Formats: sequence, C-alpha cells, structure tokens
Amino acid sequence: MTGNTVARLASRPVGIVKRENFDIREEPLAELGVGEFLVKVEMISIDPAMRGWMNQGRSYMPPVGIGEVMRALAGGEVVKSNHPEFSVGDSVTGPFGVQEYAISRGEGVTRIDTSKGALADWLGGLGMPGITAYFGLTEIGRPKDGETVLVSAAAGAVGSIVGQIARIKGCRVVGIAGGPAKCRYVVDELGFDGCVDYKNTVLSDALDAQCPDGIDVYFENVGGEIFDTVLTRMNTFGRIAVCGMISAYNATKPLPGPQNLRSILVNRLTMRGFIVFDFFDRYPEAIRALGDWHAQGGIKFRQDVREGGVRAYPEVLNLLFSGENQGKLVLKT
Amino acid sequence: MTGNTVARLASRPVGIVKRENFDIREEPLAELGVGEFLVKVEMISIDPAMRGWMNQGRSYMPPVGIGEVMRALAGGEVVKSNHPEFSVGDSVTGPFGVQEYAISRGEGVTRIDTSKGALADWLGGLGMPGITAYFGLTEIGRPKDGETVLVSAAAGAVGSIVGQIARIKGCRVVGIAGGPAKCRYVVDELGFDGCVDYKNTVLSDALDAQCPDGIDVYFENVGGEIFDTVLTRMNTFGRIAVCGMISAYNATKPLPGPQNLRSILVNRLTMRGFIVFDFFDRYPEAIRALGDWHAQGGIKFRQDVREGGVRAYPEVLNLLFSGENQGKLVLKT
Repeated sequence: MTGNTVARLASRPVGIVKRENFDIREEPLAELGVGEFLVKVEMISIDPAMRGWMNQGRSYMPPVGIGEVMRALAGGEVVKSNHPEFSVGDSVTGPFGVQEYAISRGEGVTRIDTSKGALADWLGGLGMPGITAYFGLTEIGRPKDGETVLVSAAAGAVGSIVGQIARIKGCRVVGIAGGPAKCRYVVDELGFDGCVDYKNTVLSDALDAQCPDGIDVYFENVGGEIFDTVLTRMNTFGRIAVCGMISAYNATKPLPGPQNLRSILVNRLTMRGFIVFDFFDRYPEAIRALGDWHAQGGIKFRQDVREGGVRAYPEVLNLLFSGENQGKLVLKT
Repeated sequence: MTGNTVARLASRPVGIVKRENFDIREEPLAELGVGEFLVKVEMISIDPAMRGWMNQGRSYMPPVGIGEVMRALAGGEVVKSNHPEFSVGDSVTGPFGVQEYAISRGEGVTRIDTSKGALADWLGGLGMPGITAYFGLTEIGRPKDGETVLVSAAAGAVGSIVGQIARIKGCRVVGIAGGPAKCRYVVDELGFDGCVDYKNTVLSDALDAQCPDGIDVYFENVGGEIFDTVLTRMNTFGRIAVCGMISAYNATKPLPGPQNLRSILVNRLTMRGFIVFDFFDRYPEAIRALGDWHAQGGIKFRQDVREGGVRAYPEVLNLLFSGENQGKLVLKT
C-alpha cells in the first residue's frame, strides 16, 4: 500500500460529466501524522449531489476545488492508525473521497456495526440515503394514515426507502420511475401500491389512474416537467418535500420553470427544501428506526454495486443521470 | 328603495376585465322572506381575488356563475329585518356582492363596532386584508427579531399591513412597489425601512442594496419575475408566505415559470400558500391585535375610496391590475 489511485477534479463540467473533467492517476501515499489514521476504501457512494459539488457558485457546501480529490462518502476499513479512537480493523464510513486510500483525523467518520448491515447498507439504507428518506418523509411530508404519498425517482436510493416508510405509516404509495423494469421492481419487490412509468405514459393520465384521491404528500427528487404536472394533482393542504431536482443538474442553460405554481396558493401547499445535514443531531434516531424496520423485514435495502474502481468514476456517476441504476449506486474500489 | 343597481357576470373575461363582461342594470328589489334582512350596501371591497372568481375551473371557491351577482365583500347598514339577530341600524360586513342592496340570511355576516373603526376600516385593516396580513406573516412568515422581511405589493391593502406588523416584530422591513410615489408612501408614511421601485430599478441590485443581509421572510403578493429574482436573495431556512400572484391573474397564456426554484432546495426554504379562510376560527384574535395596534398608532390603515357606484365596478377593479390604487381599494355605492 504505497500507491493510491485518486480522482481529482481537473475542470468544471459543462453539462454531463466527461472523463477529461477528472485527472485520475496513481499517487504515492503520504505518511500518517499524529492523530491520523489510514482507511482502505472499499465502497464509494455515488450520489446525484456530486454533480452540484463540481459547480462553481453558492450552494449548501463549497464546491470541490480544481485539483482537489473529488468529494465522496465512502466506506472501508482502518488499516493503520495514530488516532486514539479508531483502531486497525474498524469498519468506518466517512467523507473519504474518490480514492483507494484516505488519511483521516476522524472528522465526519462513523464506526459502523457490520453485524447490523453490510458496508454497502451503511452507505444506503442505513446511511445518507436512508436518513434523508426518513427525515424528508416524516418531518416534511408528515404523512397521515390513509393519505396518498407520491415519490419520484422511486427506484433510486432515497425514493425506494421513502415509499417503504410511507407504507409502514399506512399510506397509499405511488412511485414514479423510468421504464417497466424499475416500475415492476418498485411494486413487486418494494411493495408500493402502484408506479407510473414516466417514459411510457402521459403522466397526468397515469397520476389520475394511480392516485384517484389526489396526492397529499409528494417527495420530490427530480424537478422539471414531472414536478409541474404533479402540482396540478395535489390535494388541499398537501406537502412537498424537496430533496433533489436531478432533472436540472446537468443543464447548460436555464430550463423552463413550472407553469402551475398557482397550485401552491389555491391548494395551500407547503413546499420545503431540506438537506440531510439539517437533521445531524437526530441521525441516531433515524438509523435506529431504519435498522429496526429492516430487521423486521418492513424495509428492503438494495444496492447497485458497480465494479471498475476509481478509474471508472465518471462513467459510473453518469449512470445516475441516464437512470440506469436501480437502488443505491455504489462503486467498488 | 324599490330599485337595485346590480352587476351580474355576463361572460368570463379573457385577460383584463372589460365592461361587456358585466351586465349592470337596475332591478326591482325582492320582498324580504322570513329570517332575512335587507342591507343598504355603502362600500364594496375591491380585491385581486375577484379576478380568479370570474374564471371557470377548480379553485378554493366555486367560480361566480354566468348571470349571477358578482361576488364581493361589502359593508353597509341593515335597513329592514325579519331576522332575530340583525336589527335596523346595525352596521354589517358580509358577502353582499356588487349591488346597492342585498338580502341576507346572515351567512358570513358580521356586525361591526363603528366606534373602533370606520366602515372602510372594517373592509381593510380590520377586515380581510388585515386578517390576511396578520396570519400570513405571523403563522407562515414567522419573523424573528432582527430578521429582514420583504413584502411585495407593499402599498397595497395587505402588503401595507404586513410591513407594519413586521416592524412591530422588530424586523428590518423592505417593500416592493411600483413608482416613486408608492415607495415614498411606504417609507415615509408606513415606516418601512426601505422600498424598491420595481418599475425604475434593476430589482436584483436594488434588493442587494436594501437587504444587505439577505431576505429571511418574503411575503408574496405578485409572483412572476419578481418572485424569481427574490428566490436568489433568500437566506438559509427562509420562509415564503404565498398570499397572491397578481401578475398572472389576467394572463391569457401560460407565463414563464421561475428559473430559480433550486433555491428552495439549496437554501432549505419553506414556501406555503394560504387563504385567509383557513384561519376562520381565529379571526377574533387577529381583529383584536390589529385593533390594538391601530389604536396605539403602530399601524395605519389607508383606504383608497372610489366614487361611481356599482356601474363603475369594471373600471375600478382594473385599477388593481394597473397598480393605480394606494391602500385598500373600496367602491362607494
């Protein structure tokens, strides 16, 4: 372990990410300093938010600098340690970046219990996507027994868990996903009541069929035209939890805004954006609930683990935007 | 009092309201039935919401039917009564419509105390516009001491009161209004800290100058481009109370939607639409607070009372959309 394959941001992408936006090469590993430990990264979490981190401009986090290691959550094992609280052999998740080895001082690092879930689970259902789903649905969506909950990107890392929690809460749960395979997965394996294939139906008609009593809670992952159509089907006093707007992340020019915002006024909707970090103090509550539901079989976690290592990062990231992943996308180093 | 001048909706307007959309004529007054009383209407409240009531389609209230008396809140005096709770001489407000005399069974009618405010006040600061301002700001905006509150249509019936309440709550209050006269009125007479003249400035630059610490609460009356620009200046965890979107009410084709909705996600904004009726149970609380502030000089009410009677209704209504009114617009019969 003297070499480390690292993906550094070489230039800011315009539109879809290209291989040349990254400088991926083997670098020598630095020596461990006092209070540091070395993590052998095994799994890198591939998330839509990464695309935003590559852009210049004000956001909820500073952008990744040109020449810096690409930011990523990842999981692995401690293989060397000068840190009092992390020992060789510990399984950990943290902001280790897109690289094979990371040196850490413990900031943002969590020691995980692999008896409760595999490393990939701790990047998925028991990790950020699961925690995001939990707080977005329970704190912002606030679904009540018998209500209709609609989830976009329903086969994705967050959406798949949102829908399963909403089922546990006694709601009618309808997903939106692209293609018949994802829709079958969402209904047959995850237990949603229905799923709309936005690629092969007229969305407004399909929503009328699947949500005959309208929509009380919409969990928003995509934005764009889907959002605009959903606005026309929201019930009075409905809630919209805005978790992501993936349809716009690769846009190179402004996209048309929604035409139907008047629905917010007429139907007295509440629309609220959130980031999982806003609930940082309450992560243990979410992890406990998700772990219990998972153990009882109420929630299935599914990871889509891709091979290819750090060098495959740009191509694997783009699977998110072409919609080819099913479940939480993870890259094995 | 055997004749009654009445404005009936003759056709649904396309775009701006025209005289021919109304059939305005003198009709004989019906006889009073059991449990009914007759109101001599003195003041008719002229509100932006009226434009929406003329349209076909789903909204928070059914549209006014073709041939029906145009819906309006109004105030006047009981001149004849077969009703046990309303006596001749009572001053009342209620949904009396655009006409000189109304027969009522008491539904939605309030007996008012003219020692606490003139009839026009009870249609303005102590009526729907004041109550709307009160709940929209305190329940949805939830301003905290020292925060910046931005109010569009700041010289209007609702906006003028929103800003004055926000001042009482210890906020920096900035208005948006059209033209130097309205802006002067908002700052000099109503005590706002600043006002942006959207007709004669670059809005984004003016907001930077007037809201140097960003915007925590936006009280939305207008929609459209102003809303889109404000989105880019909202602070983290900001709140947007959506009370109206007057810029779109006369639109004959879909207007461009906002480009900057991503701000809701990035800045974790809460945007919530409301209608004053949602707070019906709590009207007395609002009227008490508004009355007290008014008596103590903390809030000024201003009505823009127009002459011309029922026959002038279409032209007076359109003053709202050309922005010619200053304060609550009222039509004298």
